[in-house]
Amino acid sequence: MGQGVHMQELPGIGKRYDIDLGSATQRVSVVVRRGDIRDLYVFTSKGDEPTAVLELSREQALKLGAVLTGTFFEG
Amino acid sequence: MGQGVHMQELPGIGKRYDIDLGSATQRVSVVVRRGDIRDLYVFTSKGDEPTAVLELSREQALKLGAVLTGTFFEG
Repeated sequence: MGQGVHMQELPGIGKRYDIDLGSATQRVSVVVRRGDIRDLYVFTSKGDEPTAVLELSREQALKLGAVLTGTFFEG
Repeated sequence: MGQGVHMQELPGIGKRYDIDLGSATQRVSVVVRRGDIRDLYVFTSKGDEPTAVLELSREQALKLGAVLTGTFFEG
């Protein structure tokens, strides 16, 4: 599963994961900050400016992740 | 984990999951379409228009989900 994901250490901040979507314009990045806050950056146009940025708590990131991976069940 | 996620059947399309981010303006929705395409909608302002929309293949959704849930490891 490593293919298509590029991880970069951000000293003092955490780790940044870039997920390749096989598109010149569409890209998504997640910054996992120390303290477990996860920032989701969505790029839908060329350039370095994200189209949308969301700050997710660990719990919110787990919920979104579960929906995306198909492991979410109504509790 | 069911709390904070609202699922709605979209007849003929698939299922829509709304993930509550505890904010009046920030929201994220995922539509899991038949055929396994997942559409990610990010809302960062009031109103019904998403700020960003991404179409993810199953594999791309799994990668993003793994990063968000902290289960991603370099392969």
